[in-house]
Amino acid sequence: MSHNSFGHLFRVTSWGESHGPAIGGVVDGCPAGLSLGEADIQPFLDRRRPGQSKYVTQRQEPDQVRILSGVFEGLTTGTPIAFMIENQDQRSKDYGDIANTFRPGHADLAYHLKYGVRDYRGGGRSSARETAIRVAAGAIARKVLGDGVRVRGAMVQMGADRIDRARFDFAQLEQNPFFCPDPSSVDRWEELLAATRKSGSSLGAIIEVVAEGVPVGLGAPLYAKLDADIAGALMSINAVKAVEIGEGFASAALTGEQNADEMRMGPDGEVEFLSNHAGGILGGISTGQPVVARFVVKPTSSILTPRQSVDRFGHEVDVLTKGRHDPCVGLRAVPVGEAMLACVLADHLLRHRAQNPDAPTRPRLPRN
Amino acid sequence: MSHNSFGHLFRVTSWGESHGPAIGGVVDGCPAGLSLGEADIQPFLDRRRPGQSKYVTQRQEPDQVRILSGVFEGLTTGTPIAFMIENQDQRSKDYGDIANTFRPGHADLAYHLKYGVRDYRGGGRSSARETAIRVAAGAIARKVLGDGVRVRGAMVQMGADRIDRARFDFAQLEQNPFFCPDPSSVDRWEELLAATRKSGSSLGAIIEVVAEGVPVGLGAPLYAKLDADIAGALMSINAVKAVEIGEGFASAALTGEQNADEMRMGPDGEVEFLSNHAGGILGGISTGQPVVARFVVKPTSSILTPRQSVDRFGHEVDVLTKGRHDPCVGLRAVPVGEAMLACVLADHLLRHRAQNPDAPTRPRLPRN
Amino acid sequence: MSHNSFGHLFRVTSWGESHGPAIGGVVDGCPAGLSLGEADIQPFLDRRRPGQSKYVTQRQEPDQVRILSGVFEGLTTGTPIAFMIENQDQRSKDYGDIANTFRPGHADLAYHLKYGVRDYRGGGRSSARETAIRVAAGAIARKVLGDGVRVRGAMVQMGADRIDRARFDFAQLEQNPFFCPDPSSVDRWEELLAATRKSGSSLGAIIEVVAEGVPVGLGAPLYAKLDADIAGALMSINAVKAVEIGEGFASAALTGEQNADEMRMGPDGEVEFLSNHAGGILGGISTGQPVVARFVVKPTSSILTPRQSVDRFGHEVDVLTKGRHDPCVGLRAVPVGEAMLACVLADHLLRHRAQNPDAPTRPRLPRN
Amino acid sequence: MSHNSFGHLFRVTSWGESHGPAIGGVVDGCPAGLSLGEADIQPFLDRRRPGQSKYVTQRQEPDQVRILSGVFEGLTTGTPIAFMIENQDQRSKDYGDIANTFRPGHADLAYHLKYGVRDYRGGGRSSARETAIRVAAGAIARKVLGDGVRVRGAMVQMGADRIDRARFDFAQLEQNPFFCPDPSSVDRWEELLAATRKSGSSLGAIIEVVAEGVPVGLGAPLYAKLDADIAGALMSINAVKAVEIGEGFASAALTGEQNADEMRMGPDGEVEFLSNHAGGILGGISTGQPVVARFVVKPTSSILTPRQSVDRFGHEVDVLTKGRHDPCVGLRAVPVGEAMLACVLADHLLRHRAQNPDAPTRPRLPRN
Repeated sequence: MSHNSFGHLFRVTSWGESHGPAIGGVVDGCPAGLSLGEADIQPFLDRRRPGQSKYVTQRQEPDQVRILSGVFEGLTTGTPIAFMIENQDQRSKDYGDIANTFRPGHADLAYHLKYGVRDYRGGGRSSARETAIRVAAGAIARKVLGDGVRVRGAMVQMGADRIDRARFDFAQLEQNPFFCPDPSSVDRWEELLAATRKSGSSLGAIIEVVAEGVPVGLGAPLYAKLDADIAGALMSINAVKAVEIGEGFASAALTGEQNADEMRMGPDGEVEFLSNHAGGILGGISTGQPVVARFVVKPTSSILTPRQSVDRFGHEVDVLTKGRHDPCVGLRAVPVGEAMLACVLADHLLRHRAQNPDAPTRPRLPRN
Repeated sequence: MSHNSFGHLFRVTSWGESHGPAIGGVVDGCPAGLSLGEADIQPFLDRRRPGQSKYVTQRQEPDQVRILSGVFEGLTTGTPIAFMIENQDQRSKDYGDIANTFRPGHADLAYHLKYGVRDYRGGGRSSARETAIRVAAGAIARKVLGDGVRVRGAMVQMGADRIDRARFDFAQLEQNPFFCPDPSSVDRWEELLAATRKSGSSLGAIIEVVAEGVPVGLGAPLYAKLDADIAGALMSINAVKAVEIGEGFASAALTGEQNADEMRMGPDGEVEFLSNHAGGILGGISTGQPVVARFVVKPTSSILTPRQSVDRFGHEVDVLTKGRHDPCVGLRAVPVGEAMLACVLADHLLRHRAQNPDAPTRPRLPRN
Repeated sequence: MSHNSFGHLFRVTSWGESHGPAIGGVVDGCPAGLSLGEADIQPFLDRRRPGQSKYVTQRQEPDQVRILSGVFEGLTTGTPIAFMIENQDQRSKDYGDIANTFRPGHADLAYHLKYGVRDYRGGGRSSARETAIRVAAGAIARKVLGDGVRVRGAMVQMGADRIDRARFDFAQLEQNPFFCPDPSSVDRWEELLAATRKSGSSLGAIIEVVAEGVPVGLGAPLYAKLDADIAGALMSINAVKAVEIGEGFASAALTGEQNADEMRMGPDGEVEFLSNHAGGILGGISTGQPVVARFVVKPTSSILTPRQSVDRFGHEVDVLTKGRHDPCVGLRAVPVGEAMLACVLADHLLRHRAQNPDAPTRPRLPRN
Repeated sequence: MSHNSFGHLFRVTSWGESHGPAIGGVVDGCPAGLSLGEADIQPFLDRRRPGQSKYVTQRQEPDQVRILSGVFEGLTTGTPIAFMIENQDQRSKDYGDIANTFRPGHADLAYHLKYGVRDYRGGGRSSARETAIRVAAGAIARKVLGDGVRVRGAMVQMGADRIDRARFDFAQLEQNPFFCPDPSSVDRWEELLAATRKSGSSLGAIIEVVAEGVPVGLGAPLYAKLDADIAGALMSINAVKAVEIGEGFASAALTGEQNADEMRMGPDGEVEFLSNHAGGILGGISTGQPVVARFVVKPTSSILTPRQSVDRFGHEVDVLTKGRHDPCVGLRAVPVGEAMLACVLADHLLRHRAQNPDAPTRPRLPRN
C-alpha cells in the first residue's frame, strides 16, 4: 500500500502540510556507503525554491533541509534517511473563506466529502510545497544512480507556445528563469508570462525530463514496466494531467516502419540505435538509450477572475483566489519531474540488481 | 513489490507466456458474496479475442476461461479467485530466426541482456495474449464496482485520423469492428486499415476509456492519487506510450479560467459541474463526474518491410516479421483499457471504504 | 517492501538512531476525524521511558513527542501523521572500542559485514531507543481501534521465575515497577533484579499482551492471518526470540479434546466460548474472544563480565560493556508489545472493513 | 498487501480450496537462468503427500505438480512461475452437517461471520491441502538459494514426548515415518500415535527447521528482520500457534553471560562462534551460523469425541468429525516448515543483494 510512499526498494515516504510546522520525508532502502550530506540535497531544493524570481510565488522559504538519520560520518548506513524542512513563511491570514468554499479546479470539494476534515490553509497536504520532498529524495536517488547517469529536465512548452526542437540545448537552461532549452523562445515566454500575471490568469506547461547513461535492463516485461512506473510517478505530481514516453501520443500517427528504432553495431561492440522513438524503453525495459518522458502541468485554478462555485453549506458562490500564487506552476515542476524520474530509476536499478546481478549495464554483444 | 501484480486491496497477479500451455491470473481481495461465474467473464474475453474479423490477428483461440478457486455455489468467498485460459493455437514453426535476432521496436535485445534466457516464441511473456488476463480481471472488478458504475472504451484515433468528437456516441461501438464511436469515421478507417494491411505496415491508435457513476472520494491527495494509478495501469499495457486524464496535454494551452470546472447546485442537492476538463479527478480524488482517460497504442513493429537490426552474435542483419499479426494492435486494446480502469477503480473503492467507511458516494451537500 | 515500515492500511514507518539528533515515525492510513494530540501519545511514552526507576537504564530522556503533520484543529485529516522525539542525552564519550570491536550477542559483526558502515554509538539503529516510535504509533492505533478495544500487557516471567497465573490481576500492574500482575511475585523479582544488577549480569523475561473487545473477523485464512502478522510484529521488537498465541508451545502436550474451545449460546444471542486455548484467533481470524500473545525478551548481552570476541581487524579480544544499561530489558518491552499488538489490530480492522463492510463486530447468531 | 501472498522479491501467491478443481501458486521474482523442472519439485511434494502411511490422512492424491509458465527449455526466464496441482480425491459426500455447524477449534464460525459465504467442503481454503503449494514454492526457493544452503526439518516433540537432543541426527529422518531425528523416540511415538488414532483423539507436535550455509547479512536491523519474517511465515502455516528462534522461550531463564555466543577467529580467517543460542540471527541479520527455528502445531480439533458447539441458526449442538483425518497433523508440517524457511531466505537473499551487492557471504575478517 502506498498512500504517501513510492518506490519499492528505494522507497520514499512523504509527510507534511503547507502550513504545518514542517514537511519531511524518509528514504528507505538506500544502499550503505554512499557519500551524502545536506550539501548534496540543498542545491536541488534551491532550484525549486519559490521566491527566486518574479515569475513564481513570492512565499519566502529558505527551504533548508536537515538530515535526521541514516547518515554517519558522511556516509549512508543502509538505515532509513529521514530529512525535514521547516515551514517558516506561513503567512497568517483569515482563511474563513477558503475553509468553507470549494475552489473550482481544486480538490476542495472532493477532500471535504472524502475526509470530512481538511487542512485548508495554503492547500494543506496538496500544496505544491510538498514537492520539495520529492526534490530532496531525488537528490538521494542521484547518489544511488551514480555519476554515470544524468537526469535533466526542461520546459518545452508554455501555454500554447512550444519551443523549436531543432534549437534544444540543455546548456541554455541556466541562462533563463524558465528552464527553457531554446533561447529563441525566452523573450516570447517572458512577455507571455508577464501578461498572464498582470491579468491574474494562469498558463499550463509541458516539461520534458531526460535520463542519460541509464543501464540496459531496468524494468520488467509487464506491470512493473519501467515506463508504467515513470507514468505513475510523474502523474503523482500536483497538477499533472498527462505523461508520455518517447514519441508518446505522436506515435499514433506514425507507421510501424517510422516508429521502430533500427539498430547497428557500433565500433566498440555496443549496439547503436538509429533513432529513439521509444524514449529508451521497449517492452517495459530500458534499452540503454536516453530515457525521455514528458508531462503536462495544467494551468493553476488559483486565478483572480471570479468563477462560479458552491460552499459547504450548499450555497452557490463566486470564488477568486487572492494572495501569492504562480501564473505558471509548471516552472517549478521541472526539478520535481527530474527528481521523480531519478527516484524511479534508482528503485529499478536496485530491483534489477536483485534479480539479475550479473547482467551487463551497456547493450554490448559479443562480436565474432 | 509488483513484478506481475497490480492493485493493493483488489490485487491481480498475472502469469503465462504466449506459447506455454496456458495463461492465467489470480484476483486476491475480492469481497465475498458477489455473484460470479465464467459467464460473467467470457463476454469480455470474446470482445477482445483475436480471429474475429479480418482486421486482427488470425490466431484462433477460443479463449475459454475457467475459474479454479474462490467461487462457491455461484458466489465469491473472499478467497483468491484463480482463473486460467488454455493456449491452443500455438502454431508450431521454426523459430530459429526469432531466437537469435532482435526485432527493432521490440524488447528482444533488452530481454536478452537482462535475463540471458527468453521465451521468444510468439513474444513470450510480452505477447499481447497476456492482455486476456487483464480483461478477465476487469470483469471481476466490474462486479466489485456494481451496476452503478459503467466503464466503456472507444477508439478515437486510428493512425493520424481522429474522430469528430461532436459525433461521439457510445451506441455506435457495436455497429463496427473498430470500437469507433463516430459513424462518419468508419468508412475512412476501413480503407486506411485495408491499405495498411496490404502494404504490410502498421498503424497506431488512441483509445479513450470512460467510467460513469464513479463514487466521489476515490484516491488520495498525493502518490496514491487515482490518476497516478490509472496512468501506471494503462501504461503497463503492451505498446502503450502515453496516458492522459481529462483535458490531458491540451490543458497546457488553456488558461486557468478555461480549465477550471465551475460548479452549481443541482435541484436535488447534488453539485453539478459545468464542464469536465479535469476528467473526473481533482487533487488525486474522484469528484463524482465521469472519469475520462486516453492512451496511445504505438504502431506495432511486426511489419513486412525489412528493418536494420542486429543478432545475438553481434552481426548486423535485416529483419522482417512474417506470420499472423495485427496492422493496428490498438483495436484489441479497447477492452483491455476498460479492464485496467475498472481494476484501478475497484482497488480504490476498497481502499476508500477502509479509511472512510461513512463518506458519501455522490457529491451532495446539505442545503439550507 | 518493508525495511522499516509495518502494516498495510495502518502503515508505520520508523527512522532514527540512538545518538542522532532525533528519532521519528510516520503513520500513514489513519482515518480522518479522530481526535488526536500529543497528550494522547505522551502517557504511553512516559510508561516506556528510561530513567524512571533504578531498574532501567539511567539515560535521561524527556521523550517529548511532537506531532508534525496530519492533525488539524485536534482532528486527524487522513494525511500522514509524522511525529518526532528529539534525542537529548547522547552522552559524549569515547566510542573507540565499540567502533572496532564486535560485542557477542549483538549484531555488530553482522552489521559490519552487511553494510560496511555502521553507526555504533549506543547501538545506532538497533538501539532499544527506537521502540519509543512503536509506542507512539501504538497510541495512534488505539484511537483507530476505539474505546471498545483494550490492549494491555504484563510481565509474566522474569528470568526463570514465572508468576502464579491464578493470581493474575491487571489491576496490580501499576502497583509495582515490573508490570507484574501477580503481587506475590514482586518481592522475589525485586531481589532477583537487584542481585543481577549488582553482579553486572542480565535476565530475560516473558511478556504477555492481551486485547479485549477485538471484533470478530479480523484476519484472513492464510498468509495474512492475524496471528502471523502478530508474530511478525512482536518478533520485530529488539531482543525478542519467540512468540506464541493462546496456548502456544504448550498446546503440543494437549489433546484435541482439551485444546478445542467449546461454544454455547449466551443469553443475548452471542456465542460464548468455554475456554480460550486459541488465544482469540482460529484459522487466522479473530473470534471475538480476547487476543492473547506472549513473547520472550532475551537477556541483554550488555554485561560487565568479559566475553570472548573478535574485532574488525581479525584480532581476538575480550569485551565487556560499561556504562548505563538495563539488567532486564524486558521491563521496558511491555508497553512496546502492547503497541505492536494495537498496530496490527488497527491494520486488520481497516483491511477487514474494506473487504467486508457489513460484517458483524460481535459473534452473534440469529436465534430461532 | 498480502492476503494470499508472501515474500517481496521472491513472492509467492497461493490459491485454491480443498475440494475445488485444483490448487496452485505463482512464484514471482525468481531470477532467470536457474535450471528448473517438475522433477525438482515433485520429490518435496511426495514427502508431504497424504496417504503414504497409516499415520496420516488416507486421502489419495497423486499431487502431481505441473509448471505452466516461467520456464523455457529447462531454465527459468525471470517471468512468473505458475504451477498447479489438480484435486482428484474429493470424496463426494453429504456435507449438510458441516455446512451449518461450527466445529470447535476450527475457524468455521469466524469465517461465517466474516464472509457470510464459505466453502465448507474439506475445510475449503483453510484445508491443510494448501500447504502443498508452500512445499512447491519452497522447492523453487531452494534453487534460488543454491546448493550451498541446506534446509532441513525434523519433528522434535510429539504430544508431550520430546526427543533426546543428545541423539539428534538428521540422518535418522528417513528411517522412520515421523521425521524423527532421534531413533530412541521412534518406538514410543509409534505406540503413542497408534493409541491416539484408536481413541479418535489427536496430538500436537513441535517441529524444528534448520538452514545451514546461510550467507551472513540477510535481514535488516528492524521490522524487516530475518527472524520477524521467519516468525510470520511459520505462523502462517495452518494450526501453528508458536514460533521461536534459537534458544527461544528458554532464553528467559538464561543469563546474559550464558546466552551471548562468544566468537574466536578460525584458522582460515572465518569467525567461529562457540555456541548458537541466537539461532543464527542477531539484530535481525543472519550471522552465517545455522538458522534454527521451531514451531508448534496444535492438536487438530477434528476428533471423534463429541464436543459442544453451535450452528448457524443459533442452536446448541454436539459436533464430532468423522471421515479421514490425521491424529497428528504435525507430521506433514515438517516439509512445510522447511519450505517456508527456504522461501524467506530466498526472499532475503535477493533483498540483501539489491542493497549490498558487494557484501561477503561468509563472516570472514581481514587478518593481520
